[in-house]
Amino acid sequence: MDVRALFLGPKGENKHFFKEMLQEAVDSHISWRQTFHPLDPYLFSSRERHQDRFTDTLYTTEDVLTKLSQQLQEKSLPWFSPRYIGHMNSDTLMVAELAYVLTMLYNPNNCAEEASPVTTGLEIETGRDLCQLFGYERQKAWGHITSGGTVANIEGLWLARNLKALPLAVAQHPDAQHLVAGLNQHQLLNMPVRKALELISKLEQEHLLAAVNRTTIRCTGVTPGELGKVLIPRSKHYSWLKAMDILGLGHDQIVPIDVDSNYRTDIDSLRDTVSELIAAETPILAVVTVVGTTEEGSIDPVHELIRLRDQVEASHGVSFYVHCDAAYGGYVRSMFIDEQAQFLSLETLQERYQRDNLVPDDVQWPKPEVYEGFKAMAEVDSITVDPHKSGYVPYAAGAITYRDKRILRLLGYHAEYTTSAATDDIPLGPSIMEGSKAGATVAAVWATHQVVPLNLSGYGPVIAAGIVTADWLAKKLKTLEFSCGARQFRTYLMMDPDYHMVNFGFKEQGNQKLEDYNSLNDQFYKASSFLSGRTFQKNFLTSSTALSKEEHGEAPWVFVQAMGFPREQWDAHGKVYILRAAVMTQFLREPASFESYWNDISAEFKHLINEIIHSEAADETR
Amino acid sequence: MDVRALFLGPKGENKHFFKEMLQEAVDSHISWRQTFHPLDPYLFSSRERHQDRFTDTLYTTEDVLTKLSQQLQEKSLPWFSPRYIGHMNSDTLMVAELAYVLTMLYNPNNCAEEASPVTTGLEIETGRDLCQLFGYERQKAWGHITSGGTVANIEGLWLARNLKALPLAVAQHPDAQHLVAGLNQHQLLNMPVRKALELISKLEQEHLLAAVNRTTIRCTGVTPGELGKVLIPRSKHYSWLKAMDILGLGHDQIVPIDVDSNYRTDIDSLRDTVSELIAAETPILAVVTVVGTTEEGSIDPVHELIRLRDQVEASHGVSFYVHCDAAYGGYVRSMFIDEQAQFLSLETLQERYQRDNLVPDDVQWPKPEVYEGFKAMAEVDSITVDPHKSGYVPYAAGAITYRDKRILRLLGYHAEYTTSAATDDIPLGPSIMEGSKAGATVAAVWATHQVVPLNLSGYGPVIAAGIVTADWLAKKLKTLEFSCGARQFRTYLMMDPDYHMVNFGFKEQGNQKLEDYNSLNDQFYKASSFLSGRTFQKNFLTSSTALSKEEHGEAPWVFVQAMGFPREQWDAHGKVYILRAAVMTQFLREPASFESYWNDISAEFKHLINEIIHSEAADETR
Repeated sequence: MDVRALFLGPKGENKHFFKEMLQEAVDSHISWRQTFHPLDPYLFSSRERHQDRFTDTLYTTEDVLTKLSQQLQEKSLPWFSPRYIGHMNSDTLMVAELAYVLTMLYNPNNCAEEASPVTTGLEIETGRDLCQLFGYERQKAWGHITSGGTVANIEGLWLARNLKALPLAVAQHPDAQHLVAGLNQHQLLNMPVRKALELISKLEQEHLLAAVNRTTIRCTGVTPGELGKVLIPRSKHYSWLKAMDILGLGHDQIVPIDVDSNYRTDIDSLRDTVSELIAAETPILAVVTVVGTTEEGSIDPVHELIRLRDQVEASHGVSFYVHCDAAYGGYVRSMFIDEQAQFLSLETLQERYQRDNLVPDDVQWPKPEVYEGFKAMAEVDSITVDPHKSGYVPYAAGAITYRDKRILRLLGYHAEYTTSAATDDIPLGPSIMEGSKAGATVAAVWATHQVVPLNLSGYGPVIAAGIVTADWLAKKLKTLEFSCGARQFRTYLMMDPDYHMVNFGFKEQGNQKLEDYNSLNDQFYKASSFLSGRTFQKNFLTSSTALSKEEHGEAPWVFVQAMGFPREQWDAHGKVYILRAAVMTQFLREPASFESYWNDISAEFKHLINEIIHSEAADETR
Repeated sequence: MDVRALFLGPKGENKHFFKEMLQEAVDSHISWRQTFHPLDPYLFSSRERHQDRFTDTLYTTEDVLTKLSQQLQEKSLPWFSPRYIGHMNSDTLMVAELAYVLTMLYNPNNCAEEASPVTTGLEIETGRDLCQLFGYERQKAWGHITSGGTVANIEGLWLARNLKALPLAVAQHPDAQHLVAGLNQHQLLNMPVRKALELISKLEQEHLLAAVNRTTIRCTGVTPGELGKVLIPRSKHYSWLKAMDILGLGHDQIVPIDVDSNYRTDIDSLRDTVSELIAAETPILAVVTVVGTTEEGSIDPVHELIRLRDQVEASHGVSFYVHCDAAYGGYVRSMFIDEQAQFLSLETLQERYQRDNLVPDDVQWPKPEVYEGFKAMAEVDSITVDPHKSGYVPYAAGAITYRDKRILRLLGYHAEYTTSAATDDIPLGPSIMEGSKAGATVAAVWATHQVVPLNLSGYGPVIAAGIVTADWLAKKLKTLEFSCGARQFRTYLMMDPDYHMVNFGFKEQGNQKLEDYNSLNDQFYKASSFLSGRTFQKNFLTSSTALSKEEHGEAPWVFVQAMGFPREQWDAHGKVYILRAAVMTQFLREPASFESYWNDISAEFKHLINEIIHSEAADETR
């Protein structure tokens, strides 16, 4: 596979192919319409099509599209170009775009197989492919497409909540309580996930599930605090706040867990929190772990979390659900999976990386703890993953996978819908949070996985290109120094990336004021984004974020200190701006291309900083 | 406007225009890429593009797309053809498809304006257009695109729940409780929506909102039953069960309201329920009203519900939130709105219908109570509406609108996101349930509304075509009789459609067994759907549903009785199958076209029934 043949290209290099495929999709769709009952009459004629009212309608349509196109060209972000490194966006895969358009012409709705006889099957297959990517068993697990990671996270926590509550309902049910006989409240609330899933099977075997489902939390509603705390790393995406609100659990049940200087869940801090909750006899509903934090691209030590769960299960009979938010990083697991879906040893991997030229000698990847984190994803109970992030598929395509599909039996919205062959009696509409869903999205993800399999020979080179380029960029950013007149500046790298996100800042030499640093970087961001001037004319575009004491605890201090700011500055301001660059481009993977690119953008950095300080100086003298 | 110029057409009649526009979209996008920094190097050459590995990758892509296309052609539903009348599907609007593709190439993400500098503005505008459609004030109201109606319904009930809980939190807050001084628990729980919204304003004025938001239900979580019951018509979509589960309220808080023989909320039944709840001092969180039931296309008497709320507010100091699920029927309000966004009097309307040839003399539409129902939508607190249903936009495009945007202040996820010009400081991501969202979907809906405005001269003729054709079809189905050998059959119409959904069944003359009728119609459905044989070869395709005593109460008995079945049959079986046809086609609006179509499909009806009874006979003799 040649990854450059997968994208339209920064200059539209593959335009002929793209246009040919698009034309073929439309032509064959129109043939389909024409040959469906060829004798059916043409319902309007060429003569009618050339009447004024008809052509006027077409002109109006054309005018609106032209207006839309002009607006998009004026202000859209040039994600196709390596000059844009900011949000998790780059060029997207041609196959995904083409499959979307092709399928949209047939407009299937994956809510019910009746409305999507083809794409329902593709969704089931895609869900299994994603499950396999994460080390789940294809037939035992379950996954499906969502509109995005937020919905996937809410859905995952919804099912976790309902599973956690199940043993309580069983204990209350006269016909079913024998299944949990002898367990006290503490044990019911700490039933390990695998045992709660077995309980579902037992209820089904004894034909009690329907009856119990009428008495569970989905019927009785939430009781404040009853199910315990949800532990979420401080680096949390705000979708978790939404989720806790929506699910009726409430923010007060969130216990934020500190992150370390790599913005990963601090496992000591997590252990302390778990111990405290055990001591206080407070149950833990779930622990959320993040593979690819939104702001830093950090990969949690999932293995340490799983080990901790095993430990407290053995030592204290305490257990909890583990959901992994891998919206951003999930696809990266392809970097560890061979063509037989085996997760490779670190040694074998390094050989493959070298043999296939995925990772060159001067790049060390992965860090051992990152490797272990990805490996342990197979042990978590559910995983959010966004094809529209590291899957290089256009918006909006998220997904969620569950390790064990028995969890769906708790929803109990199945009864009426049983005519589905494709889904093993798991109908999509009633088994997920959303209803109607574009079959085109599903087809886009499915087709992508056919061309770019979820393993080392598929997504491997696509994802490796970003990792390698990010590593090179990070190294450059550790040492860049330049002067603007008499003033000296340098860049600081916030941390060595776990994946492909590079966070950095510009600091004036000698500056001891965090406020000035923040202002400089905020201005740099404004100059390098849609917020000032015409996007299309920018030479460099990025994104930014602010890391605060309030949200990230002491983690940002490590970077603030490394830049040489005194502690009191951090205590006084408690917030540090950074520039945030997800490096996803496929087109800087040749060292020569990268060097040429770096020369251009580092010159642009200097130019922009120069403009900022001159405009400040002008403001001061005015 | 000529509506036939809006669709690709059953024979691809507008293929030249469609293909030209698509090509223009792609060409101008590629030009955009090429002219972004023209001096940037081409990152791979023609020579590289012709190497084996590169061309192999292209061939793989092509093969996968071809395979996908073949599958879609084998089994997709021919929604473009009037031979399909089943689910709410027909051909979709070209402008929507073209705008989607055009925008997808730029791949904006409407989660944050930073990632969608153009389409965020278009979403705000589209939201306001939808608000205006419903009679809301553009600037005071708020609406946005969702992935579908289910998510919109969940979101609406989420905000209703949080608004209902607000006065309780205010009463508990030492700094804020003076704002509700003197109100007892009953009054707090029955604060009318408009007063609760004023309370938000007061909290903001006194800079107390942030503090109170830290003590509301979003933080404390749900307390079972505290906020009272949610009243939902029996015709309810199962998304309401999901919503009550997800939001932590629980199914037990649902009170199902009977529907009348038109499958509309029975207002007497609703009044009785409300009276009982008042007597029992049980608060009512919300009442859900449906404009376009999924199975029957019925339009609730929204005006009666609003009147009832006014009455109990005056008489008992009891009030509740009203959410309108107009996922299916919302766009039909365009049939009542002139170009100045005025809701017309019934008299003026009838003149317009005649003048513009929207509704011919032989069709009586709307029924007076349907007119009043649509009119009163302006009074409800929030409305779900799906552009991908009666908006003729491809999946997945839903929307929700709120009468008063102050309700968003309860979410309180705003703080960090304030750099938005387009949104009046209402950032999309934190103000809605979902996160990432395709800007392409938004652009598709926006562009559609530019070409097909939400009024009598835009959606008017598009929607009228379905209404008129449905009326003609309904009349035919009232009287169709035919014989198959010695056996006589006739069709029965379940009810005169409120909108464009026609439900009917085939009954053998003299048959007194409901079971046999159900079996016949079930077999007819199977023969007329993807469930048997090759979809592409069918002559007629439809959908079906079963109306049961359990879910619909006594409403289906009216139809069962009309068909001449004895009461004991209904009591014994409690379920009646119907064929369900949403008539959305634009291409049978000429009486001659319709007559020719009817001749074809009525012959096919006879043919199919003949086949079914012969195959039954063959089974019996075997």
